[in-house]
Amino acid sequence: MGNVNVNIGIIGFGTVGTGAIKILLEKKKELKEKTGINFCLKKIADLDIKKERHIKIDKNILTTDANEIINDESIDIVVELIGGINPAKTFILNSLKNKKNVVTANKALLSEYADLIFQTAAENNRIVKFEASVCGGIPILKVLSDGLTANRILNIYGIVNGTANYILTNMSKYGKSFDEALKEAQIKGFAEADPTFDIKGNDSVHKLAVLATLGYGINVKAKDIYCEGITEVTALDLKYAHKLEYEIKLLAIAKLHNHNLDLRVHPTLIPQKSMLAKTDFENNAIYITGDAVGPLMLYGKGAGMMPTASAVVADIIDIAKKMVNNSLENGIYYFNKQPLNIYPMFALKTKYYLRFSAKDKTYVLANIAKVLSDSGISIASLLQTETNEDGSAVIVIMTHPAIEKSMISALEALNKLSVIQGKVFALRVEDEF
Amino acid sequence: MGNVNVNIGIIGFGTVGTGAIKILLEKKKELKEKTGINFCLKKIADLDIKKERHIKIDKNILTTDANEIINDESIDIVVELIGGINPAKTFILNSLKNKKNVVTANKALLSEYADLIFQTAAENNRIVKFEASVCGGIPILKVLSDGLTANRILNIYGIVNGTANYILTNMSKYGKSFDEALKEAQIKGFAEADPTFDIKGNDSVHKLAVLATLGYGINVKAKDIYCEGITEVTALDLKYAHKLEYEIKLLAIAKLHNHNLDLRVHPTLIPQKSMLAKTDFENNAIYITGDAVGPLMLYGKGAGMMPTASAVVADIIDIAKKMVNNSLENGIYYFNKQPLNIYPMFALKTKYYLRFSAKDKTYVLANIAKVLSDSGISIASLLQTETNEDGSAVIVIMTHPAIEKSMISALEALNKLSVIQGKVFALRVEDEF
Repeated sequence: MGNVNVNIGIIGFGTVGTGAIKILLEKKKELKEKTGINFCLKKIADLDIKKERHIKIDKNILTTDANEIINDESIDIVVELIGGINPAKTFILNSLKNKKNVVTANKALLSEYADLIFQTAAENNRIVKFEASVCGGIPILKVLSDGLTANRILNIYGIVNGTANYILTNMSKYGKSFDEALKEAQIKGFAEADPTFDIKGNDSVHKLAVLATLGYGINVKAKDIYCEGITEVTALDLKYAHKLEYEIKLLAIAKLHNHNLDLRVHPTLIPQKSMLAKTDFENNAIYITGDAVGPLMLYGKGAGMMPTASAVVADIIDIAKKMVNNSLENGIYYFNKQPLNIYPMFALKTKYYLRFSAKDKTYVLANIAKVLSDSGISIASLLQTETNEDGSAVIVIMTHPAIEKSMISALEALNKLSVIQGKVFALRVEDEF
Repeated sequence: MGNVNVNIGIIGFGTVGTGAIKILLEKKKELKEKTGINFCLKKIADLDIKKERHIKIDKNILTTDANEIINDESIDIVVELIGGINPAKTFILNSLKNKKNVVTANKALLSEYADLIFQTAAENNRIVKFEASVCGGIPILKVLSDGLTANRILNIYGIVNGTANYILTNMSKYGKSFDEALKEAQIKGFAEADPTFDIKGNDSVHKLAVLATLGYGINVKAKDIYCEGITEVTALDLKYAHKLEYEIKLLAIAKLHNHNLDLRVHPTLIPQKSMLAKTDFENNAIYITGDAVGPLMLYGKGAGMMPTASAVVADIIDIAKKMVNNSLENGIYYFNKQPLNIYPMFALKTKYYLRFSAKDKTYVLANIAKVLSDSGISIASLLQTETNEDGSAVIVIMTHPAIEKSMISALEALNKLSVIQGKVFALRVEDEF
């Protein structure tokens, strides 16, 4: 490997962009020693180029027009860090058509348009890399696509959203309410002013789409994934979960059942003693089982300026090395020749946690047991807690594995029972850790 | 990527060899779909080719002569799985000279002869890969050398020996003695008949040498690493550690202090609440801090037939892809142009845990505090436990950070005190998790 220059253009001078620029400028010498490559930051595009970013750069490389990067013949790698579908999609596709390699952190875009982007890259013999799109600095995509190639991936369980995990951890450890925990997360910078995408599960869905695409070699889109957020989980649920030796985490789940792929994001009871359950606060963790390697977990910071920038620059270096070696192969993303079907949610079989308030303890249990058994669901354990002031009591039931479809009809029937106050709250349980 | 054949020869038909052969044969179609490459197992060499391995192979590809592989012009990749220094070293060097790429799991060899092997590979434009040499199926080397390229590695803390961790976990959880726990590990297959290398720390030293070489870009050899095993740790130490909210783990540690690299393997007190402390039984975990990514942990099975074979085959696939793309670059292992010095052990500054029996509680504390303070060491906390039948008591002291050299002289002085029975047992403490 000789002394070669690789020219980089960055679109999006926000938090992650600033981090990537910091690394490229401050570690220029170090990176050259490591790789033999001169990483040259040629241009940075952002709508706002006046804002103070506390970083020393040549003002001449700033532009408000992303096309100045996309159409610059000298630029080898375009880094897209603006997020969202448009204009990011156009920027990426045009960069590829102009024979540039692309690095992106855009999970929303990939979870909808991965096929179009991969195809455009292949047609132009260029590479798209996107390590930073899932779990910031954790090199999970490299592990999935290079480290575990000898494996059929049996399942992926991820705590991939730091905001939701921060909130649930605070509810779990300190008995805080959801609203209190969310507010604290916002004050400490672990939740956005508008946290909808994080707490409703959409962000986890986007990341799971990318993970499942790489892990299973099929084109998984966000719309294929069942999604349920954490907004209905209460501190009480965490308290009862602990009594049953469980923890509640927002999990992104992909599981292979023969040729069906089960894909879902929802708050989940998992055994308290598992390593996933111990993943606290803003940390992320991804637990993968491969048929050869067995279970494997990666744990770390899933967000933040420098962790995410670490992944962006790793992708830049990877592409640059391939350029130098004239080996711009994009990998085979859709390797699965027998396409997997998306497992229908109603066919899911899992244990359920049910929590509800009931007025009359004497009759309620017989009633509930009957409704459940009419749907083919049997009770594994039952917690009857302190009686409330109005004479009602909170009752918590763990079921044996049941079919989602049966549970939906059982819940409908339960919610009609006069002994039950309000609605039954149900959570799914995963025990395989 | 077209339809190409890559021919493989495996030297060593033991446990890991059998696993790798299983994957290559049973997943031939799957691997071709994933990579476009036909992986052809051409020859297997082992001194014993008669033994029943419960795997269906063509007997004609078996040989007792490794040179039949090394000198076979059609073979592209030689996989060395016999372990030990000789003849593995000769096999690898001759394979490289014969223009073959090499995959090995041989940590003992790498921790002594990495420089010779890397140089021979570079001279012949061939690749050596060795993911399976450290922590079996956990793709830690890929993460270190590809995933974290944008980072300066600040430290590595690894639980890299499953046998030692299994023993310590059993002592910690069930109060077993070292001998009982070792025996159980042997019965359950987590310890060899001769467990010396595992419990004395040598195996961890070999793995740390490989990790530090990749992480720091210098040639780290086993002899550069301080080594202390777990044979002196007692169930009592675990009990006292718990009282102080610590766990005891055999850690492989690499830490950067400016241009000095601190390298050591020893039983270590680490905070009970840390993810490393929660790594139980035969599992391995490696906790790495990068200057950009922050802390990151990989957790999984560090040994076993299929996990280790998963790493071997990942390396084979990686090399095959590079062959197909004509990009057989070996990477720059020794990227550090300002070579790091090995930090001298006597200069280490750390907190210490001290445990000893003393006859006369009234006088002993004043005596001990004086000896320690004479060496510039101050006491952070003190546990005085139940008095033994003979009137002696076990005393446990945690010190504030102290210099190793001072601690060595303090221990000499303490061991001369008449109030102390037997010798003072000292362990180092790491708090940075």
